[in-house]
Amino acid sequence: MSPLDQLMKHLARLPGLGPRSARRMVLHLLKRREALMLPLIEAMTRAAQDVKGCGTCGNLGGTDPCEICNDRGRDRGLICVVEDVADLWALERSHAFRGLYHVLGGTLSALEGIRPADLRIEKLLTRIDAGETREVILALNATVEGQATAHYVAERLQPTGVAVSRLAHGLPVGGELDYLDDGTLAAALQARRKTA
Amino acid sequence: MSPLDQLMKHLARLPGLGPRSARRMVLHLLKRREALMLPLIEAMTRAAQDVKGCGTCGNLGGTDPCEICNDRGRDRGLICVVEDVADLWALERSHAFRGLYHVLGGTLSALEGIRPADLRIEKLLTRIDAGETREVILALNATVEGQATAHYVAERLQPTGVAVSRLAHGLPVGGELDYLDDGTLAAALQARRKTA
Repeated sequence: MSPLDQLMKHLARLPGLGPRSARRMVLHLLKRREALMLPLIEAMTRAAQDVKGCGTCGNLGGTDPCEICNDRGRDRGLICVVEDVADLWALERSHAFRGLYHVLGGTLSALEGIRPADLRIEKLLTRIDAGETREVILALNATVEGQATAHYVAERLQPTGVAVSRLAHGLPVGGELDYLDDGTLAAALQARRKTA
Repeated sequence: MSPLDQLMKHLARLPGLGPRSARRMVLHLLKRREALMLPLIEAMTRAAQDVKGCGTCGNLGGTDPCEICNDRGRDRGLICVVEDVADLWALERSHAFRGLYHVLGGTLSALEGIRPADLRIEKLLTRIDAGETREVILALNATVEGQATAHYVAERLQPTGVAVSRLAHGLPVGGELDYLDDGTLAAALQARRKTA
C-alpha cells in the first residue's frame, strides 16, 4: 500500500472521519508539510510519550497525580464522578466545580459486556475510605446506561455514609420550551423552584 | 502549553475539525496509543517524507513522474486539466478517464491575489509543445472562479491549435429534477440529447 493510502486508511479510522474527509485532510497536510504536518507529527509524538493517566482520578495530563488532584486550592471533600475524561474537561470548562473528579471509564453495559469490575468503582471506594470525602456528585450522562451506572454506584456508596447527589434535570440555559423533549420538560416542571 | 493542548491546537487547524472534534480525536487516540496513535504517527511521518509532487502533472504520489504519467497504457494524447489533486483522484475513482492529467493548483482569483503565474499554466503549454497532445479537457469546478479560469486557460491554449473541451453540465445520475437548481436544469435542457 502506498504511503498516501496508508495514511488515509489510518486517518479514516478516527472518530468523525470517513474516507472523504481523510482524503481532504491528507491533501491539506501534504500541501503544508512544514507549517502543519511536521508540527502535528511532533505534537502527536510528544503527546503519545508524555500524556499519562492520573492514578487517582483517571484524568489525562502531563503528570500523575494530575494537575487537578495536585491542586491544593480545590475542595478535597467533593468528588464528581464522570463517565469519561471528555466529561471532566466539559465540567472544567464550565468553571462551575472546584472539587476533585473521578473518571469511571465508561458505563455498565450488559450488551457490551462491561461489568462493574471494568469501571474504576473500587478505586472510588478506596478514595472515600481515605476519609476526606464529604459528598460524591454523580455527573453521569442522562442516558439509560449512564443512569443505570449512577444507580449502581450510588448503591455501592451507601455503606460509606458519604452524601451522594446527582446533576439536576431541567431546561438548558438559552433553551426553548417548544424544542425540548417531554421527559426534560416534565423533569423541569417537577423540580421547579420558588422565585425569590 | 501542555502536550495535550498543543496536540488539540494542531488538530483543530485541520479542515473540517474544530476544538470539539479535535478534543474527541485526542481522547480517542490517547486511549488507543498502540493500536491507533503510533501507527498513525508512523504513517504520517512516512507520507511527509516519501510523498512527492509529480513534476509533470502535479499529482501527489510515491514517485516523480507519478504512476499515471508513467503508465504507458494510458492515452497520452488526452490531458484533463483539474484545479486540485482531489479532483484528479475523484476522476480516477470514476474510472471514466484513461488519459493524462494536469493539476493547475487552484483557480484565478483577484480577491485572493492568485494570478496566472501562480497556476501551472506555463507548464501545461510546455507539455502541449512537446507535441503528443490531441485534446485538452478542462475539468474545472462549475464555480465562478473555476469557469473564469477555464475561460482563461482555453484562450491561452488557442494558439497551440489543440482541441479544447469542457465537462458537460446536466442532471446528476440518480438526481431528482425537483431538487435541482435552475441553472443546472436549464443547462441540462439546452444540452439535451436525442434518444436512440
